[in-house]
This record gives sequence, C-alpha cells and structure tokens, in this order.
Amino acid sequence: MIPIKVAIIGGGSSYTPELVEGIIQRAKQIPLSELALVDVEAGRHKVEIIADLTRRMLARNGFEQVKVSVHFTPDDAIRGASFVLTQLRVGQLPARAADERLGLKFGLIGQETTGVGGFAKALRTIPVMLNIARKVEQLAPDAWIINFTNPAGIVTEAVSLYTKAKIIGLCNVPVTMHHMIAKMLQRPYRDVQLRFAGLNHMVWVHQVTADGQDQTQRVIDMLCDGAALTMNNIKEEPWPPEFLRALGAIPCPYHRYFYRTRTMLKDEITEASAEGTRAEQVMEVEKALFALYADPHLDHKPEQLSFRGGSFYSEVALELMCAIHNNLGTRLVVNTPNRGAIHDLPADAVIETDCIVDAQGAHPLAFGSLPVSMVGLTQQVKSFERLTIEAAVHGDRKSALLALVTNPLIGDAGLASPLLDEVLAVNKAYLPQFN
Amino acid sequence: MIPIKVAIIGGGSSYTPELVEGIIQRAKQIPLSELALVDVEAGRHKVEIIADLTRRMLARNGFEQVKVSVHFTPDDAIRGASFVLTQLRVGQLPARAADERLGLKFGLIGQETTGVGGFAKALRTIPVMLNIARKVEQLAPDAWIINFTNPAGIVTEAVSLYTKAKIIGLCNVPVTMHHMIAKMLQRPYRDVQLRFAGLNHMVWVHQVTADGQDQTQRVIDMLCDGAALTMNNIKEEPWPPEFLRALGAIPCPYHRYFYRTRTMLKDEITEASAEGTRAEQVMEVEKALFALYADPHLDHKPEQLSFRGGSFYSEVALELMCAIHNNLGTRLVVNTPNRGAIHDLPADAVIETDCIVDAQGAHPLAFGSLPVSMVGLTQQVKSFERLTIEAAVHGDRKSALLALVTNPLIGDAGLASPLLDEVLAVNKAYLPQFN
Amino acid sequence: MIPIKVAIIGGGSSYTPELVEGIIQRAKQIPLSELALVDVEAGRHKVEIIADLTRRMLARNGFEQVKVSVHFTPDDAIRGASFVLTQLRVGQLPARAADERLGLKFGLIGQETTGVGGFAKALRTIPVMLNIARKVEQLAPDAWIINFTNPAGIVTEAVSLYTKAKIIGLCNVPVTMHHMIAKMLQRPYRDVQLRFAGLNHMVWVHQVTADGQDQTQRVIDMLCDGAALTMNNIKEEPWPPEFLRALGAIPCPYHRYFYRTRTMLKDEITEASAEGTRAEQVMEVEKALFALYADPHLDHKPEQLSFRGGSFYSEVALELMCAIHNNLGTRLVVNTPNRGAIHDLPADAVIETDCIVDAQGAHPLAFGSLPVSMVGLTQQVKSFERLTIEAAVHGDRKSALLALVTNPLIGDAGLASPLLDEVLAVNKAYLPQFN
Amino acid sequence: MIPIKVAIIGGGSSYTPELVEGIIQRAKQIPLSELALVDVEAGRHKVEIIADLTRRMLARNGFEQVKVSVHFTPDDAIRGASFVLTQLRVGQLPARAADERLGLKFGLIGQETTGVGGFAKALRTIPVMLNIARKVEQLAPDAWIINFTNPAGIVTEAVSLYTKAKIIGLCNVPVTMHHMIAKMLQRPYRDVQLRFAGLNHMVWVHQVTADGQDQTQRVIDMLCDGAALTMNNIKEEPWPPEFLRALGAIPCPYHRYFYRTRTMLKDEITEASAEGTRAEQVMEVEKALFALYADPHLDHKPEQLSFRGGSFYSEVALELMCAIHNNLGTRLVVNTPNRGAIHDLPADAVIETDCIVDAQGAHPLAFGSLPVSMVGLTQQVKSFERLTIEAAVHGDRKSALLALVTNPLIGDAGLASPLLDEVLAVNKAYLPQFN
Repeated sequence: MIPIKVAIIGGGSSYTPELVEGIIQRAKQIPLSELALVDVEAGRHKVEIIADLTRRMLARNGFEQVKVSVHFTPDDAIRGASFVLTQLRVGQLPARAADERLGLKFGLIGQETTGVGGFAKALRTIPVMLNIARKVEQLAPDAWIINFTNPAGIVTEAVSLYTKAKIIGLCNVPVTMHHMIAKMLQRPYRDVQLRFAGLNHMVWVHQVTADGQDQTQRVIDMLCDGAALTMNNIKEEPWPPEFLRALGAIPCPYHRYFYRTRTMLKDEITEASAEGTRAEQVMEVEKALFALYADPHLDHKPEQLSFRGGSFYSEVALELMCAIHNNLGTRLVVNTPNRGAIHDLPADAVIETDCIVDAQGAHPLAFGSLPVSMVGLTQQVKSFERLTIEAAVHGDRKSALLALVTNPLIGDAGLASPLLDEVLAVNKAYLPQFN
Repeated sequence: MIPIKVAIIGGGSSYTPELVEGIIQRAKQIPLSELALVDVEAGRHKVEIIADLTRRMLARNGFEQVKVSVHFTPDDAIRGASFVLTQLRVGQLPARAADERLGLKFGLIGQETTGVGGFAKALRTIPVMLNIARKVEQLAPDAWIINFTNPAGIVTEAVSLYTKAKIIGLCNVPVTMHHMIAKMLQRPYRDVQLRFAGLNHMVWVHQVTADGQDQTQRVIDMLCDGAALTMNNIKEEPWPPEFLRALGAIPCPYHRYFYRTRTMLKDEITEASAEGTRAEQVMEVEKALFALYADPHLDHKPEQLSFRGGSFYSEVALELMCAIHNNLGTRLVVNTPNRGAIHDLPADAVIETDCIVDAQGAHPLAFGSLPVSMVGLTQQVKSFERLTIEAAVHGDRKSALLALVTNPLIGDAGLASPLLDEVLAVNKAYLPQFN
Repeated sequence: MIPIKVAIIGGGSSYTPELVEGIIQRAKQIPLSELALVDVEAGRHKVEIIADLTRRMLARNGFEQVKVSVHFTPDDAIRGASFVLTQLRVGQLPARAADERLGLKFGLIGQETTGVGGFAKALRTIPVMLNIARKVEQLAPDAWIINFTNPAGIVTEAVSLYTKAKIIGLCNVPVTMHHMIAKMLQRPYRDVQLRFAGLNHMVWVHQVTADGQDQTQRVIDMLCDGAALTMNNIKEEPWPPEFLRALGAIPCPYHRYFYRTRTMLKDEITEASAEGTRAEQVMEVEKALFALYADPHLDHKPEQLSFRGGSFYSEVALELMCAIHNNLGTRLVVNTPNRGAIHDLPADAVIETDCIVDAQGAHPLAFGSLPVSMVGLTQQVKSFERLTIEAAVHGDRKSALLALVTNPLIGDAGLASPLLDEVLAVNKAYLPQFN
Repeated sequence: MIPIKVAIIGGGSSYTPELVEGIIQRAKQIPLSELALVDVEAGRHKVEIIADLTRRMLARNGFEQVKVSVHFTPDDAIRGASFVLTQLRVGQLPARAADERLGLKFGLIGQETTGVGGFAKALRTIPVMLNIARKVEQLAPDAWIINFTNPAGIVTEAVSLYTKAKIIGLCNVPVTMHHMIAKMLQRPYRDVQLRFAGLNHMVWVHQVTADGQDQTQRVIDMLCDGAALTMNNIKEEPWPPEFLRALGAIPCPYHRYFYRTRTMLKDEITEASAEGTRAEQVMEVEKALFALYADPHLDHKPEQLSFRGGSFYSEVALELMCAIHNNLGTRLVVNTPNRGAIHDLPADAVIETDCIVDAQGAHPLAFGSLPVSMVGLTQQVKSFERLTIEAAVHGDRKSALLALVTNPLIGDAGLASPLLDEVLAVNKAYLPQFN
C-alpha cells in the first residue's frame, strides 16, 4: 500500500496525541507518509509541542519515516492529503468559557454544543470550516474531511450544503454508549450491536442486540435499576425509570439537556460558582497536559489525557479512515446527509445513524419514521440547526433570532434579541459575517 | 327548503344564547324544525333556563314553530339531526379551575387548551366525544358534527381517527384575528383575506391581502408599532418587534404560551393570586349570566355575554352550517384532516387552515411546507396531541407520560410522573379508561 | 375600474374571435383599454385579418374605444399588459401535421399533445415560451400569463421552473367534461360540481356531485350504458363498462390514448389515409375560416368556428381573468404547481386540478394520494414531461432519448434513437438548442 | 452450534439438489439436524426421488446424521424449523405453460413473472403462500421464510402485508449480474461491488465499483461495445448503446420486457412456434433431470442442472441463511419492505436493494430518490403489483382488472376483461378465492 498524507486542522489540540496513538496502532492498515499539523499563529507554541511529542511517539514505535510538518495556513497541509481531520476551535477555550458564562447570565444552559453556547460556537466555526472545505475542494478533491469540530452535526451539514467537499462527521457519543452498554451486558463490544438514529448529541439507541438477540428491554431495565450511562463531561443525572420505560429506547447523555432542562441548569449554576464552568475546568486540565507534553522524555500518550473527555475519539476516527481507505463496508455510526434514511427529515439534513462505510463514503441504513415521541423534538432541533447555518453563512440576523427562539433550551421570543446582541458583541472578533 | 333539526350537546352552556342569536339571523338559509338541547343531569337547572330563554328569543323573532327540546341522554336528540353541535365540558368549570391550579402547583402554565391543562381536559373529553360520535354514526349518519369543544384540534382529530362520523372543528381565533386585522387596516372584513395554516391554537397568518394586494408586511409593521392583536381571555403581551419581523408572519394569541412562556407564567401566577385563575373568574361571570338568563322578560342575547369571551363563535358556526347545508363552497378556516395540505404533517393529522366548505365537507387548500422556523414547533405540538389521543382512547399511561414530556410547556421528564399522578388523581371521576 | 391592456401571443390564430367574443361579454368585469395582437412576420396576413375582424366585433358592441394593435415582436405588446394570453404554435399547422405523420411512420400515435407528437411540439415551443416569459418578467412583472399553448401542462411547468413570470395553464377538457356531465344529469352547469385531479390531458374526475349529493356512481353507470363523453377532436371510442366501474372515476377523453392505445392507433391510421391526419383536416377548416373572417361585413364570431374544436376555451379564459382581476376566489380547474396538493407528485410539478383563483393566483385544493390504479401512470407521464422539459431547455439529447423511452405510447428503447433522429431532422429549423 | 431444522416447501423441485449442494458446502456455518421436504400429493414421485438423492448427497459428504423427511402437509415440516425455504409452484409447469400460451393468444408477452403470466401466477400462488406463512406464524414464529417463489417481489410483499411471519425474498438476478460484471472487469467477485435499487425483476445497477473506485461508465461502455449481460432464460437482445449511455445505469435482463417489448414479443412468438414456450422446454429438461436424479448411483448435483436456469440461487440462499443464523451483517441484495430506502415508494412496498442482513433480518441501505427516468416505470409496476395482491387476497375482480390495465405489458383497457375471463377460466382449479 502506498503511504498517504493526513492533515489535522487544529493540530495543536490537546487531543492530538490520542489521534497519533490511534494512527500508530493502525499503521498496517493505513501507512502514513506525512502528518501535517495546522493551527493558528496564536497557537504556535502548543502545536509545536504537539509536533515534537508526535515525532517522539512515532519514533518510539519505529515510524521515523513519517514526516511531521507544522503549518499556519492550511493550503500546503491540505494539498495532496487523503484525509483532512478537522478539530479546530475558533476562539479556543476562552470563547467556549464565554459561551457558558453568557448562557448562565441569561438563566440559560451554557453548553458547548447546544442551546445558546452551541449556537455561538456554530456562528464562529462555520465560516472557518467552509473556508477549509473550499480549499479541500480545490487542493485535494479526492480527500475526505473527517470532522470532529463541534457542534459536529451542524458543522457537517453546513459543509455538505455549501461545498462539494466530501465530509463525514464524527462524535464519540455513540461509541461510548456502545462500550458502556456492552459492559452492562458483560459482553464483548463486538457481540453487542446498537441501532442508532437521531441527530448529533440528540441520538437514541432504538434497539440493543447481543448475538442477534434483542436485549433492549433488558438494558432499559438495568438503566432503571441504576446502571449509569454517562460520559465524563455530562452530569450523571439518572433517567426517571417510568420515562425510560415509556420511551422504550435509550437517550444519549446530551438528551438530559432537553429532557431534564431544569435540573441540568440548576446543576450547572452550582458547578459554575463552585469549580467554574466546564471550559474553565478544561483550561486547567489543558495547562497541565501541555506541561506534560512538553517533556522531551515523554514518547506516549499520558494517562492524564483521559480526564479531558473525548474518549474513543481516536478509535472511531481510525476505524472510519480504515473503512474508507480499505473499502471495507464497515458498519459505523456517523454524521452524514439523511438521503431518506429517517423518513421525517429532509434528504439533505445531516443525521447521526448507522452507516455502511466504504471507499464511496457513508451509506445510511434506512430507519423509517421516528417514534411519535421523538419526531417533534428532533424536527425542532433540526429547525434550530438549519436556521443557525443560514445565520452563520449569510450573517443573517433574522435567521439568527429565529434559531434562538426555535431552540428548546431558549424558546422565549422576548429573550432572543438581547441574547443575540450579547452573542454578537462578545464574539465580535470572530463574526465578520455580521459586521 | 325543508326545515332541519339541530342538536346541541352541552346545550346548557352560557354560550348557547349566542348560537341561538346566530340561528335566528340565518333562519332563511337554514330553516329549523327543532333545536334539541342535551346536557348532563347535573346541569338540568341551567339547560332548562337556556331552553326557556331560547324559546323566548325564537318567539320574539317569529319562530314559534321551532321546537325546543331538552334531553339528558343524547340518543333522541341526535336521531334525525342534520347538525350536531358539540360544546360540552366534562366536569364543567370546576374541572377547568382544577387544571389551572394543578399547573401552577408544579410551576407550569395551567391553561385550558394546551400544556397540562389541555392535556387533562383532553383525557376527560375524548371518551365522551367518541361516545357522541358513535351515536351520530348510528342514529344520524348523514349529520355533521360541528365541534367547538376544547382542545378543539385534539378532540376533532380523535373523532376523525376513531369513528366514521363526519366532523369539522371550529375555533373563534381565526375569525377574531380576521376582524382585528381588518380593523387595523380600516377595511371591511370581506375585503381582507388572511392565509392561515397551523394547528388549533397554534395557527399563523402567513399572508394578509386587502383587495388582492399583499399587506402582510404593513400589518406586521403596525403590530410592531403597538397595534394590539389580542383576545379577551389571553393577556395582551405585545410581540417583540424584531421577532415578529424575523418571523414574517402573524402568530395567534395562544402562541404567546409557546413564544413567551416565562412571561405568561409569571402573569398567570400574579393573576391567580389576585383575581383568581381564568376559570374562577369565568365561574363568577357565569353565575351573573344565568341570573340574567332566568329573567322571564329577557328575550334576546344580553350584552354581558360578550365579557365571557368566545366572540364570533356563533358567526363562524352559522357560516359553516350554511356552507354545508346550501353547498356553497365558502372559504372558511376550520379544523379538518390534513390530506397533504401542510406537507410536513401526516395526512390524518387535524390541522387548522383555509378550506373550501360545501355539502361534502371541508376541502383544505394546499399550503406546501411550513417555514423552517415554524415546522419544528408545529410537529412537536402535533406529537403531543397524537400521544394525548392515544392516552385518552386507550387509557395508556406510557403515552400519557410521553405526551407530557413532549409538550413544550412541560418538557421535563423528571416532572412528568408526579404531574401525571396528580392529573389522574384529581380527575379520577372522569377517567374510567385509566382505572 | 381602470381599463387594462391584454396581449395575445399568437393573436393570428383562428381561435382569436372566440376570445374576443368572451372579452366583449365580460367587458363590465374586465374593462379593456387595448388588445395587443402578436404574431410572427410569416403570419402577418392572418393576424391583420383577425385584427380587423376584432375591431368590427368591438365596434358592433359599442367598444370602439378599445385599441387593437398588431405586433411582430412581443416587447411593445407585453409592456404594461395585465394579462398575456399565449396561444402560439411554433411552425404552425404544418409542423403539427409533420408530427402526426412522423408518429404514424414509426407505427406510433402521432398526437399533438402526447406521445412523440407532444414531445416534438414541446421541444419547439418551450424555448419560445421561455423567451416570452422572460420578457414578461422584465416588462410586465405584475402580469399573469394565461397559457393555452399545448402541450399546456408541460409548457406551464417549463415556465414555472425556469422563470419568475406568473403563469397559469388552461385547457378546455375539464370545462367540456363539466358541461357534458351536467347535460347527462339534465342539471344546470352551476349545480353540478366535479372533482378533478391529474395532469393536463391525463385528468380524472374523481367525484361528481349535484347540489352537494354524490352522483359519481350514477354518472359512471350512464357512461357504461352508452352516454358519450367526448370532444370534437378525439375519436368516440366508448369505455369498456367493466373497466370504468373498476376504476370508479371518469377518465378524460385523452386517456383513450393510454388506456386504448391499440384501438386509437388503428383508428388514426385509417383516418390518416382516408381524410388525412387531424392537422391536415384542421388546415382545411382554417382556410375556410380565414376566408370568412376576411369578409368586411362580418362583425361577430361565425358559427363555423365551432367545428375547429376548442369549445369553451374562451369561457374558461375569461372566467380565470375575472377571478384574478376582481380577486374573486372562484373555484376553477387549471394547471399550476402542485405544492403538495397531489401527495404523490413533487411540489414543483404542474398538475391539473381544482383551485381557488384570486388576485394572488391559483391555490390548489389538497387532494391527498391518487388511487393506486392511477398513481403509476400519472408518475410515468410526469417523468416523461420532466425529461422533455430538460431536453427542450438544455438541448440535451440524453434527456430527449429517455423522455421518448419513458412515454407509455412509445416505450421501446430500440425505437427511441431513430425516432429522435427523425424528430430533430424534421424540426431542425425550430430546434436551435440541439444544433 | 446447535444443529437446526430447515423446511423446503416445494421440496420436489428439480432445483433442490442445487440447494442441497449449498447446504453441504456451508455445513460448518449452518449445521443441520433435519431437512424437511414438503410437496403436494400429486408430486409424491418427484419429491421421493429428490429425498433419496439428497440422502445420497449428504452421505457422500459425511452428513448421514442429517435426517431427510418427506411431508405432504406443511405442519410437521414447519414445526420447529429455523428456516422455511419456499420454492413452490402452484399448478406446476403445465400452469406456467398455460400462462405463456394464454399471453401469446392475446398478442401479449406470456412470461412467468410479469405481464399476464406473472399476474396469473401471483393469483394462484399468493393464497397458498399466505397459508404457509400463517402456519409459520403459529408453529415456528422465530423462523425466517426465505422465498424464491415467483413472482418473488409480489409474493414477498403479500406475505409481509398480510401476515406477521418473518420473510425475505430472494432472486438470482442480482448475484448473476454481479458475477457477470466482475467477469467483464476481469476482477474477483468480492472486489467488485454493485449498487442495486428497484423492484424484483425490475432492478437497476446504479453504480459499479471495483476496489472502491467507480467503474460504472466503464461497464456501460463495455456493454455498449457488445459485452453480453444476460441469463439463461432471457433472450440476449443487446441494449441500444445510446439508450444505455443516456440511462447511466445497467438494467437487469428482465428490463428487456419493458424496454424492448415489441422485439421480445416477436422473439417469443417465433420461439413458441419453433421450440415451444419456455415452460414447455423446461418440462423437457425436467423430465431428463428426474431420470438422472432417480439413478441410485448419483450422489452429487449433475452438470445438466445448470441448463435449467436459476444459477447461483443456492449461493445467495445459503449466504443469506448464514448471515441470519450467525448474525453477520453481510451486505446482500434481497427483497424486503422499503422502510423509506427508496424515497419514491411506500414504506411497506417490497423492493429489491442492497441490505445489511443479520439475525434481525434485512436492513436496506437508504437509496434516496430514483432518477426521473426510472421512477415512473417503477411506480407503474409497483401499482400493478399492489393491485394484483389485492386481487389475489380478496378474490376481487375489480382490482384484478385494474392490475391488468396497469401493467405496461398489457395496458389496454379493452383487452383487460376478456383476458381476465380467460385467466380465471384456465386457472379455475387454483383460484377458489374468485369462485
């Protein structure tokens, strides 16, 4: 196999060593010629630390021949790449912290991927991502963009609507749920299969099978009896058992923002005033991580990275790249245009569901209609997403306002204008489309 | 023309004199042989007051030949009727007052037609309405049910899904908006046309024309400048101008519950502790009205009825009956199965929209897709409605719980179980399907 | 009311006196300032005969003040017009005769509006109509195009897909069926109502009511017993009774081409060799008509025009213009984009169905799904129409070939290439888009 | 693994040895305890020959422990089975020969699976298959029915609409096309992937990839240059190159009946008068085969079976059974309810397309909309199929008549009644539902 070039946009992220570890483990299936790390000038120090650590990790595993390059404009990194991994963060963690504080100021959930936080992040991120995608169109038209950038569903939809670049969105929620449910059933991961359908950060497990036998009810019963299904960065609020049994499906952890809004908001307020918001905590973790990464003796991914959240990201990213590169037809849960798979959503809406992935991309399995108890919420959130994209792409204040009103975590039309004013003021530097 | 029989289920309602006034005004187009008033035994006193007043009103206008009969079981009233008007209220006003108080107890909007109040009312009402509809199927299969019973959209959908009786649902919101907008434009009612599409109590005016010229933007501008668009029984909270302009359409007054939830709740709490809840106020009004009605010298609809709300009900009811009886093809806004008129909703979902009404019933004009800013909310509320119907018809607790979680005014899964327990306990006498 | 200007593209048509008669009858509802007749230079002689006759007809009825102008380019005629009536015929009757002969040469039905004949006519006509529509966009953006040009459904769809001009397509088939069925029922036209849904020249009557009572089965029984439902220019082949009863609806006369293909072809071959093809017969009729029209003493529509076919065209055209001009909300059967009215067809497909027509245009009544026995044929023909439009607009030979294969009257893939070659060769002068 | 029981309904078919060969080859993945052969009493001689041959074939390969049982009622065979393979032929080959002759008598294609032949076969077969399926519901509710009985799509749809039995329909057309195209590309079967979507015997290959690279155009070019894509039992009429290039996809061999109707009919007439119809030829082949099978020394599938047609049936059947039994998630082309996979067809319509098959059954990949050139024909044929099912299940003559009119190979409403009379008369013994 001919070695390929992989570009990582946002290469200075503290996650990168996890990706590098995955790349090393899969080196037989995806031999690499070059790893091109791209970041902004302001992140030069961090990306150079990451580049050096990456070189040490590769060397330790006998992959000295893989070139590790660092770039502060994307063009050279993208040119000739087979995969372009996007994990960028416009405004970096301080912008996320501002989103969280901004939400709380208005008595709203301030969260990175939904509500007003997700909205603000989407406005900042989409123009930058479209710029990257257009470079991929020109400079590496056969490359696949593998997008982890949050809000991953919205960003993937924006790119697929407004460019011709090939893109698949990834999230670690489905894989994490899969691992946890397998553990609950005390079965190996591979013997357990979940049927996912929904949107990114709003996905349900509609069926659990183990060795082909339906175990959905059993898993629901276990969850009702207290088995936790949670992720590092979401508060472990247990699901009310009667609700879970009525739903007949397993919500993802982020569903708590929608199904338990009041409780989640209360917890967030408490946490913010005690330990700081999530972003503020992560900034501390990051500082510590980069101190470790800078150690010239470190040549592997440190344990501590696991506190950062984002577990299994590397696993799904590499499995996806393998499936594409080797035309495997692997079944994976990714974010991709609907094409009729979920009957209730438009063909061009990006959804999160089980797909067969091969060299031609992701082919969603037909799901049919969502249950009536899920269809309204899903369409409400998809409306929010679409309006947010229109706002971000065109700098259209009307769409922005309607997006805020449409989001179930905000809802109030009276709040929307001052909230939008604040979002635009706080993020002025990152929102040229509104100026 | 052969005179016809009209049955009024819930004939003891304080509204009935308004209907009777309408009937008298339209006597040339719909000559009557009999008006059959049906009520429950507990309402005997009230229905007899109404019957006597009705006879006096008919006599004063020279319609002594119209028989006015009173019934405490529906069979004889329905048999041979051409129209069956349903305006029943299971549990009467005290049940409504209980709904309102119940909502407030949980920090939720307690409203007659949506939220937990509308939910409780639907559970009480649907089984009774299905019983009436099945009698119509058997005893007057050619009759049309004209339903005003709230929640009118849900009740109409339940009857159209579960019986073969012919039914059209009516609400006075569209006609009231039409009169108000005509007044704002200083134009006669007939020269102004509105394009409605949505659900009952969640309907938007998508276009206003006067003499065929588009005036939508002008009306929106007037509303932004403070022209009120409101109804007796909904608080006059003005729409935020920027929101209205972004929406590009005119919401109905009940939309305030969804778009201004926080404010509406705050107002309701204040009002409940000061003047009492809406139902409690109405009970006072009713007491006074029946004192008037009982006066043997009263032979016309008294002024005071207008404080009761429900203006124009009689106008739309009679216009609808005329259109059917005389096969007129009149354009009216009613509640009827979708049949594809709103692209985003199922064919059998009852919607509120412009229809052509003739002897064959209501034929909705095709609307196409709702704007993205409205489609999510509409589907969310339709999901709530469908789950509520399933719960009411089958006494299914799971559907009931999911209905509560799905309603945007409730939302919280943690709240849903205790809330449902309370609804079922308070309404135990009216919910045999859950026992 | 302010008098308006009406442009007639193809003003030299022998039909024009019928239109003029209608205009005179409706002069109170639509007062005219100018009638602008447009034709090609080659038709100068005919259009001038028509203009003179028109002036005499107007004068006889006291409308000397209406200006009658003649144009050989459309710009001046369109500028300032309120209605632009399009009844053009690219290549005139000889082109139609060539279509008919071309079909027969290949053993296929040669018909003006479907099969290979309709296909050839669409290729010739669409570019010319798009040119007219673009002029209307620029020079009379508020004007409505009323299109009679055949194939009317395809032409109307092409204009509505590729321009922003306002257009409604008209056909005399529905009105003719309406008159005939009313006559069969021995009832006045106005008391009988038909429910139409389908495509132009492929429309079914799904329900007949008289005074609001369903008479569908009775009309079907009468048709089975031999009552004719036919039109001047379509052979009176009776419907097999068992088929009609199974269908449960009334096909239009043009359905015979699809349901009785073999018989129709046989009849056409016989007729062509005896009396000549339809176009050849019409050419004779036209010659005689123009001799009459040229008579300076003729000041009314001559009887003989009725042999030409196209009865009631003027009636529907004027009723449509009245409905728009006076914002009447009249129920009319026209060709307009679907917008979800027929569930099984795309939103932008032009259909023929009952609409409410007012100053804002045509609003189709929602029909729901077509019966399973009709849906396949309808979609097959709609596919043909869409492919034909693509071929005509882009000069795309692939779409043209697939259009021919898709048409149920042609079907054979082996025939398609030589057939297409012949169509393109015969019509070379009129198909610049393919050169 | 626990050995399982497999029932074969129509076990006396000459195909059975091919299935047995497949079973032997896959014995490691699907260990067998019993093979239960079911046939009608009239076929006793043949099924006993097959049973003996099966025992010899099993013994030769060391599987003496597998019990081979013979049944003349299905109950004992079905009870406890894991798979029920259905390959029955009501009325056997003489009924098929009668279908073919009946078609030709009316100047129509007489074909086993479409046109009037497929229609007649469906009427005979569906009631018997529903009876089998209802037995499976009761006696082996976890079993999967693997249906090869033609018309396979229609039969599978009837069972899935009218019973709760689990069923997947199979056809050897996709696998045969796959093998042929792989051969054309000179690549191993496994490296070539085809994307199928359509109906049984009306399926297109929309894309060909080899090692993940698109080769569709190349395959089309090869086919245009003369590479044959054909099957034993369909005449090798080459596709017109221009048509194939315009279509941009690869039709299945049975598409010739629709795209080349005239030629196919002519060939069929010639063949019928020379060598006899297809069924008549097959009867000869069968006679010879059973003479071979009866030889007590024969203990393997004889070469000559390959002349019978139906190659690869055993391969796909066993691969499907393996995928289900071992929960493999294999990608296979099968017949299964649409569930939105093809946007243009109802959710419950059975389609033929790429699916992921595991223990839960077949999960179709979402395809989106069919190209406009295919959608009409597909829906036309699906309408025919649905009407045929209604006719077969309810013995409804109206649906039967409309089915015939709807089928593109028949079409003519004048022909439909006498044709239906003849079908019902000829098949009287097999159509109790119409008596």
